[in-house]
Amino acid sequence: MADNPADFYAVIPAGGIGSRLWPLSRAAAPKFLHDLTGSGQTLLQDTWDRLVPLASKNIMVVTGDIHAAAVREQLPQLSDDALVLEPSPRDSTAAIALAAAILEKRQPGVVIGSFAADHVILDQAKFEAAVKEAIQVAATGKIVTIGIKPTEPSVAFGYIRKGERLSETACQVLEFVEKPDIATAKRYVESEQYFWNAGMFIAPAALILEVLRVSQPTLHKGVIEIAEAWDSPAQNDVMDKLWPTLTKIAIDYSVAEPAARQNNVAVVPAQFEWHDVGDFAAIAELQSHGRRGHLAVLGSARVLSDSASGILVSDTGRLVALIGLEDVIVVDTADALLVTSKQHAQKVKSLVESLRQSGHSELL
Amino acid sequence: MADNPADFYAVIPAGGIGSRLWPLSRAAAPKFLHDLTGSGQTLLQDTWDRLVPLASKNIMVVTGDIHAAAVREQLPQLSDDALVLEPSPRDSTAAIALAAAILEKRQPGVVIGSFAADHVILDQAKFEAAVKEAIQVAATGKIVTIGIKPTEPSVAFGYIRKGERLSETACQVLEFVEKPDIATAKRYVESEQYFWNAGMFIAPAALILEVLRVSQPTLHKGVIEIAEAWDSPAQNDVMDKLWPTLTKIAIDYSVAEPAARQNNVAVVPAQFEWHDVGDFAAIAELQSHGRRGHLAVLGSARVLSDSASGILVSDTGRLVALIGLEDVIVVDTADALLVTSKQHAQKVKSLVESLRQSGHSELL
Repeated sequence: MADNPADFYAVIPAGGIGSRLWPLSRAAAPKFLHDLTGSGQTLLQDTWDRLVPLASKNIMVVTGDIHAAAVREQLPQLSDDALVLEPSPRDSTAAIALAAAILEKRQPGVVIGSFAADHVILDQAKFEAAVKEAIQVAATGKIVTIGIKPTEPSVAFGYIRKGERLSETACQVLEFVEKPDIATAKRYVESEQYFWNAGMFIAPAALILEVLRVSQPTLHKGVIEIAEAWDSPAQNDVMDKLWPTLTKIAIDYSVAEPAARQNNVAVVPAQFEWHDVGDFAAIAELQSHGRRGHLAVLGSARVLSDSASGILVSDTGRLVALIGLEDVIVVDTADALLVTSKQHAQKVKSLVESLRQSGHSELL
Repeated sequence: MADNPADFYAVIPAGGIGSRLWPLSRAAAPKFLHDLTGSGQTLLQDTWDRLVPLASKNIMVVTGDIHAAAVREQLPQLSDDALVLEPSPRDSTAAIALAAAILEKRQPGVVIGSFAADHVILDQAKFEAAVKEAIQVAATGKIVTIGIKPTEPSVAFGYIRKGERLSETACQVLEFVEKPDIATAKRYVESEQYFWNAGMFIAPAALILEVLRVSQPTLHKGVIEIAEAWDSPAQNDVMDKLWPTLTKIAIDYSVAEPAARQNNVAVVPAQFEWHDVGDFAAIAELQSHGRRGHLAVLGSARVLSDSASGILVSDTGRLVALIGLEDVIVVDTADALLVTSKQHAQKVKSLVESLRQSGHSELL
């Protein structure tokens, strides 16, 4: 039975810097390694804890090798054979397909689920119910995504268009659509036929690999060759040789969209509250701990605030005094300080880009 | 002749923390020790340079003994016998009257001028002309103040009400009035009978002391006793013993107002531009160097600004990124960070007060 944890393996692709969260989130300390909710745990630890009731110890983490030490420290329960270290970032298909190929080799017929390391999900019971339902549907030979009911016409997410009902909760997926413009997003939300794509996929590992074999044969071949050498003395040599040759492509394009065109994808609607914590404005909304009036405070900041609202992130130990600012964002780190407002939170990404272009890589 | 520099001695009372400029200005590093205009010199150095053409080497600095090292470093031309070190702050009368008493003892009949260490004066030639005129009038037996023509109905300054004309430029002073409310300030400005009191006084030292003898006999007695011991081996012992006993009172109350009531004060109108650089909003207006668009930048900050306006003060070497903020004030120091807006610049003082009350004296 696919809903037996022994047959289910969770995969956490822990990549992506989260450059909208600079200067807190850095190449060397990306978003998932931080406590952004004031929960006392990092997003990665929260993700792990969320999956344990579903997968027990069957949780694999795929991350950059520069994060190996931090990930091992944050997840002492993670065993070495469940940690895949990428020599360089090759986008989500390489990460998830390699995990699928390794796990399928170890345990043919396994159903895997991929869950981002840097999302926030409130309501554990509803999350578990949705994943269990998705595992059931996946076992019938589907790639199953968990769809988020839109709360606003966001242009920050891709959308999933649902089709006919497959079970009490699951529906066929007609298509995945890329981030829309605002008018299109409004139309999608009003139609009630669309979900946000939160990147959660549950499927038989073999099915993911089969879709990939057709859509990206070269990439598929490389992943299978690495997986064949995995758990053998040649593992690291083959990884180092082949990994840099793998095509960089998001799994949405390489697997989800082709599978949807073959009517091979289902969606289970999420009943839980989900946040991608994409920028500091989102954190300010979410952050419930450490509030001073209308100011969200993250880190060990010593704060003196006179009627300021917004968010302060500080771990420098300095006193931070804020006077009379609305929706301000202040991020105080040892080598960089960001001051902006919630209205401009999305612009942090282009600022980081201009830092990169001007050669300030030590700050990224 | 009193307009001969040999007969004129300038005094710079260098006191006052400037708490509206926290966290840049501190008890240990007050306003006058900083370059607030981007001139490349501190306010104290600018004040010194402004006075040299009028007084040559006859310039005395009265400051707190904790600032002795900084003042000597900033003013290598200052000789030890022109530096009066206060064991503790006793307000402006004690500082200026002691300077007057020492200088009168050394050179009976001397005319002295007192000039704040932390003001900004643009147009050196007009400043010199005003002071020379004031020295002339002072030599006739007057206390002469230099009046600033109000550019707005400010409630941040005391006002000087002028009376009958004494010379081509100088007028009698009818009275000094304290900082008014906004309605009164408007009336003053519209009447064209008032100047701002910028605390610049030029007078025979003996006249200042005589007015003080009548208005504050105990304070006068203490100052004279210290001056009698000055330049003798007993100087420091007597200073340490008597200084803490001197009444704390502003010279406006102890000398200027009583003298005005005796028709003993004249005003010379300033033709130059004057700023007291009272808060960060004032610095932002004034700062002409280091601008990035509409952002004034003070210190060695590395700045990345996307359409921000206002002022950034930073000397931590960190990168400071500002996005889309209007009239922002960011002051980035090693142990404290202030973020506010020009609109709230005056509130910094009360923030400093609340720091004091909450026992954060290490940050003041």
